[in-house]
Amino acid sequence: SVQHPCSKLTQYVSQRWYILLFSSFCPNRKFTRLPHLAGTQQNLRLAEQIRDEWLAFGLDSAELVWYDVLLSYPNRTHPNYISIVDQHGDEMFNSSLSEPVPEGYEHVTDIVPPYSAFSAQGRPQGDLVYVNYGRTEDFFKLEREMGINCTGKIVIARYGKIFRGNKVKNAVLAGAKGIILYSDPADYCAQGVEPYPAGWNLPGGGAQRGNVLNLNGAGDPLTPGYPAKEYTYRSKLKEGAGLPKIPVHPIGYHDAVHLLKNMGGASPPPDWRGALNVSYRIGPGFTDDFILNKVRMNIHTYNQVTRIYNVIGRIRGAREPDRCVILGGHRDAWVFGAIDPVSGAAVVHETVRAAGALRQRGWRPRRSLIFASWDAEEFGLQGSTEWAEENAIMLQERAVAYINADSAIEGMYTLRVDCTPSLHTLVYDITKLVSPEEGEERISLYESWHKRDNWTNNRDAPRISKLGSGSDFEAYFIRLGITSGRARYTKNRKTERYSSYPVYHSVYETFELVERFYDPSFQRLEAVGRVRAGLVFRLADALIIPLDCKEYARSLTQYANTIQQLALEHPEAIQRLFSAVDNFTQAAADFHQRLDKLDTKDVLAVRMLNDQLMYLERAFIDPLGLPGRPFYRHVVFAPSSHNKYAGESFPGIYDALFDIENAADPDRAWDEVKRQISIATVTVNSAANTLHPVA
Amino acid sequence: SVQHPCSKLTQYVSQRWYILLFSSFCPNRKFTRLPHLAGTQQNLRLAEQIRDEWLAFGLDSAELVWYDVLLSYPNRTHPNYISIVDQHGDEMFNSSLSEPVPEGYEHVTDIVPPYSAFSAQGRPQGDLVYVNYGRTEDFFKLEREMGINCTGKIVIARYGKIFRGNKVKNAVLAGAKGIILYSDPADYCAQGVEPYPAGWNLPGGGAQRGNVLNLNGAGDPLTPGYPAKEYTYRSKLKEGAGLPKIPVHPIGYHDAVHLLKNMGGASPPPDWRGALNVSYRIGPGFTDDFILNKVRMNIHTYNQVTRIYNVIGRIRGAREPDRCVILGGHRDAWVFGAIDPVSGAAVVHETVRAAGALRQRGWRPRRSLIFASWDAEEFGLQGSTEWAEENAIMLQERAVAYINADSAIEGMYTLRVDCTPSLHTLVYDITKLVSPEEGEERISLYESWHKRDNWTNNRDAPRISKLGSGSDFEAYFIRLGITSGRARYTKNRKTERYSSYPVYHSVYETFELVERFYDPSFQRLEAVGRVRAGLVFRLADALIIPLDCKEYARSLTQYANTIQQLALEHPEAIQRLFSAVDNFTQAAADFHQRLDKLDTKDVLAVRMLNDQLMYLERAFIDPLGLPGRPFYRHVVFAPSSHNKYAGESFPGIYDALFDIENAADPDRAWDEVKRQISIATVTVNSAANTLHPVA
Repeated sequence: SVQHPCSKLTQYVSQRWYILLFSSFCPNRKFTRLPHLAGTQQNLRLAEQIRDEWLAFGLDSAELVWYDVLLSYPNRTHPNYISIVDQHGDEMFNSSLSEPVPEGYEHVTDIVPPYSAFSAQGRPQGDLVYVNYGRTEDFFKLEREMGINCTGKIVIARYGKIFRGNKVKNAVLAGAKGIILYSDPADYCAQGVEPYPAGWNLPGGGAQRGNVLNLNGAGDPLTPGYPAKEYTYRSKLKEGAGLPKIPVHPIGYHDAVHLLKNMGGASPPPDWRGALNVSYRIGPGFTDDFILNKVRMNIHTYNQVTRIYNVIGRIRGAREPDRCVILGGHRDAWVFGAIDPVSGAAVVHETVRAAGALRQRGWRPRRSLIFASWDAEEFGLQGSTEWAEENAIMLQERAVAYINADSAIEGMYTLRVDCTPSLHTLVYDITKLVSPEEGEERISLYESWHKRDNWTNNRDAPRISKLGSGSDFEAYFIRLGITSGRARYTKNRKTERYSSYPVYHSVYETFELVERFYDPSFQRLEAVGRVRAGLVFRLADALIIPLDCKEYARSLTQYANTIQQLALEHPEAIQRLFSAVDNFTQAAADFHQRLDKLDTKDVLAVRMLNDQLMYLERAFIDPLGLPGRPFYRHVVFAPSSHNKYAGESFPGIYDALFDIENAADPDRAWDEVKRQISIATVTVNSAANTLHPVA
Repeated sequence: SVQHPCSKLTQYVSQRWYILLFSSFCPNRKFTRLPHLAGTQQNLRLAEQIRDEWLAFGLDSAELVWYDVLLSYPNRTHPNYISIVDQHGDEMFNSSLSEPVPEGYEHVTDIVPPYSAFSAQGRPQGDLVYVNYGRTEDFFKLEREMGINCTGKIVIARYGKIFRGNKVKNAVLAGAKGIILYSDPADYCAQGVEPYPAGWNLPGGGAQRGNVLNLNGAGDPLTPGYPAKEYTYRSKLKEGAGLPKIPVHPIGYHDAVHLLKNMGGASPPPDWRGALNVSYRIGPGFTDDFILNKVRMNIHTYNQVTRIYNVIGRIRGAREPDRCVILGGHRDAWVFGAIDPVSGAAVVHETVRAAGALRQRGWRPRRSLIFASWDAEEFGLQGSTEWAEENAIMLQERAVAYINADSAIEGMYTLRVDCTPSLHTLVYDITKLVSPEEGEERISLYESWHKRDNWTNNRDAPRISKLGSGSDFEAYFIRLGITSGRARYTKNRKTERYSSYPVYHSVYETFELVERFYDPSFQRLEAVGRVRAGLVFRLADALIIPLDCKEYARSLTQYANTIQQLALEHPEAIQRLFSAVDNFTQAAADFHQRLDKLDTKDVLAVRMLNDQLMYLERAFIDPLGLPGRPFYRHVVFAPSSHNKYAGESFPGIYDALFDIENAADPDRAWDEVKRQISIATVTVNSAANTLHPVA
């Protein structure tokens, strides 16, 4: 009884789409044969190829849309590396300049070596301090409990737990003059798994590329808030948004051993120890034979304004062409990108293929569809953000939803969905109609997912998480307030403790990695594809936009409860927030009662209720933005200030409360808490009002 | 052939409305019998009365909506005044504590004396410097040409030319420790006219009340950006938005003579001389017998959080209840307020009466109507701004237009309209159907207006101006980007050189002033009422929203030309702005072509084009706001930074260019010009895109 997710499509269409989707992941192998780094010729060629195929599939239009944005590349003639230098300044040890290239790819040129995009240039030299994951709490512990000052030091942090840009920001705040990022086996190797190519663990010579910006949603660092077109003013590089002021460089664990094995100072706390087979200790320098030695970073990475290309494809809606649903995912990869992003880009491509096939048989969805292949996601979500900036007014007025399609797999265990609360019910409905992976053909994806990952609270349903950031939905959801969600296959979060997936952002993200280990039958990819495409088709084609305001009310209640635990000192202010949430809950219930009674033949009445549904998410946008983060404007959700990857609920309140017991001016700090609670209250009340009967 | 402005209304209805409107201005005399200052019992009672009448007229609903905002009142036991003190500190001259009350009002209590609302408290004492109108250019002249430093001085400025708050801001920037504002006969007396009650000129004992805030659109100073409800955080008074840091006080010309007649120093330039019958000179102190004397201000005005009440009435739309047109004007007055605001409030009241009468006969407009009687306009547009803040999300999504109804008359000569360009054509259409004042019954208001005030450029049509600020449309137009306009009867701007109307904000704004001088037959009021109501009814009831995008294009071209004259150094940037304006012009022309071919029976197609029309003004909103003015977010229009009353086109560019030849860092200053031109270009291109065919 498991069926196609789009109930509106005919059996014929649904079978056809199934066949198309099934048969075509393999051909997408072509997307992973060559590196396609943002700003390179290969990535432009791939964009042109995708545009041409989308047109051939049958879209109404497909075009390249360019922006000239700030990107960052290693210097080809002066490679980046880390050294241990002796008292004469001579280099006793140098870190590797590249990763060993996997078999079958030996003749590929243009593999960019591991680097930290947008690192400052420089050759800082000094003592090394180990800062664990480089989290806010790690630096607090160093400064407050261990009495270790990082000013003027080079710090070394292990990858994992939080976005690398936050590690760099913390290091800058602590006064460090450089930061080395390394992959510890404790965080990048699963137990009982071999390193690639024998298994899917990170080899010792592998390292994680990635940008180290703190953009807070600004997009291109030189044109924050505006599209990076020929007519746009660019700020000076030194005033660019989010650029780190210190050199940053990533290394693998084979190199990291050399830096860590002889460190002096006090023993690190047990939870600070990684899994390297050396007993390193934390401290401000080296002991033993390294006593007089220092670490030196040699970083020559440069920033350059570079043209990037999004591919934008469209199908015009039959009844409401001025309403659109967007499916977008990035195309640019650090190297081959078989997981990140091609496993996601393939889903977009196959969805376009299916939609185009339907289109060629005369079908049109009720609303318009927009498909996007974003560029330069790896450089700070730039392609998607610039397009959002260029089309902000149109999107604010007309976008029903944005579904993100980054990596479709990061594990082999079950589904993972992060989305806005109003999408919960639709996600459940769709997953009940989709088959899960091989061997579970007789149950639905919903059942499989439910068995493997239930809500941690008392709810009997598969767990769905808040949206954080780190992918292209950011500008659409957090800046513009467009209903958004993402879905992928993930690991078992209870038993698999490594970060991300081990070979993340390394040269080892090959097609073979996916084909041999992650999804040999491509059924996981297909399941994720059906969820994503199911969301898009249902949102675009249902007469009534399938959003659930009551789920939003339920989540708001939960978030208010969380805040209450943190702000026990402010019962009156919190009580007002609860009143607002109650208003919202009542308004949502009433709204859905009216929706149930709607005369669906009354064209204008349907449109009006749909507008209320479409604009619900928009109601949580405060144009003034969060403190110090003008492009994060969603009052209910924002990326955590301490980890861009994580979503924070009521982020203004949360940030005001953070570490408040150590505030320099407690009265002022508590005032700011009250102010933030009041902003949340105003906003939730406003949102409730938008659900009331109109006029 | 002059007809009712609402072509959609039947003949019966139109006659009915005409009779209603005609017969009822006199009864509104009751609105002017007592003072109704914001925050007082009288003004609450008036609000309740208006609510009850609106309900009786037949609105679907009418309610009071309160906010607790910061207001400012004189201390009843410690009056404010200005003294000349001798070398012992003894007061040799004191300014009057109140205005002589006009005949017939002798027994009225609660007439607030002339004061500057939100003045700082204090008793500064010192030399007096005459600063002409206190404009930016006046202070430039003082500092740069006359070599006069105002630091630590008390300054005296004559009223007129610019908003008084700007004078105060300029005085603070110049370092003054107090500022006296006075009405000079040159600016507040028309030639050949007697002072009130014999004529309509300002008597020597009259003085102009008014707030001296620099809110820049913030509304309540303690809750900028958010509605001042019980759940809203209030900032500390010292952090309040726009509050002046120095004492301010207004006086009439009888008092001003004493301060001015014996000033020393150099002679003022001829254009700095007012009309007082004394030969005063400019300078930093007093001469002759006043040589050792000083001026002292005695100011005890206090700020207080006070409850204010808007009246909000509604008629639900028949077909599109989720689209609304707002007619709003303020109710609070400094004293009797017969011109400001009652001549406008009466228009709102009569429009409600007419709409209610139609409603009782079964009529409903296509879209919803919202009628507003705002409170505390005189204290910084607070009632209207707080309501806009509470309903921002709803208004952004659903408001078709806002028509303002402040004073309907400021002169007896002809019509004055300030509105957004897309309303030009509708204004012309309506005025062609309205009769002008007495004695001109056989021509239309359009013809009368056209004869008396043509565009100054080559256009053969009555002149329409840009919206500035100083009235309640501000939050709707400049912050939220809602199509807005205002209309009133005005003086002959070529021959009548006085500011505003002479008794503006004095106790002499009585019903008799209007009845005897300004509009004895109430035909001017009625003509203005028909224009305002005609706009509202047509916008609410027309199948296609009657906005003209081509007029917007024409105005943008004109504004770009003006900027070009100022920024000749940046031909490339300006060229890009012109390209954007060309894009907009083409898009507007194409849009109207499609509109002409529209199948008006296609309900969704009509709605879609209407949405494009409704959202056009919204497309000019930049959520980042203008530099330092976050609540002024319209890229094309803002109140001048040097005069809140005046509208500036492309204000970001204009401000960046202002006085640039004296910039401390010219490179940086020119960079900012380029940045602002780029923001305008981005925005105009975006707006053009919203007019393209959807999807």
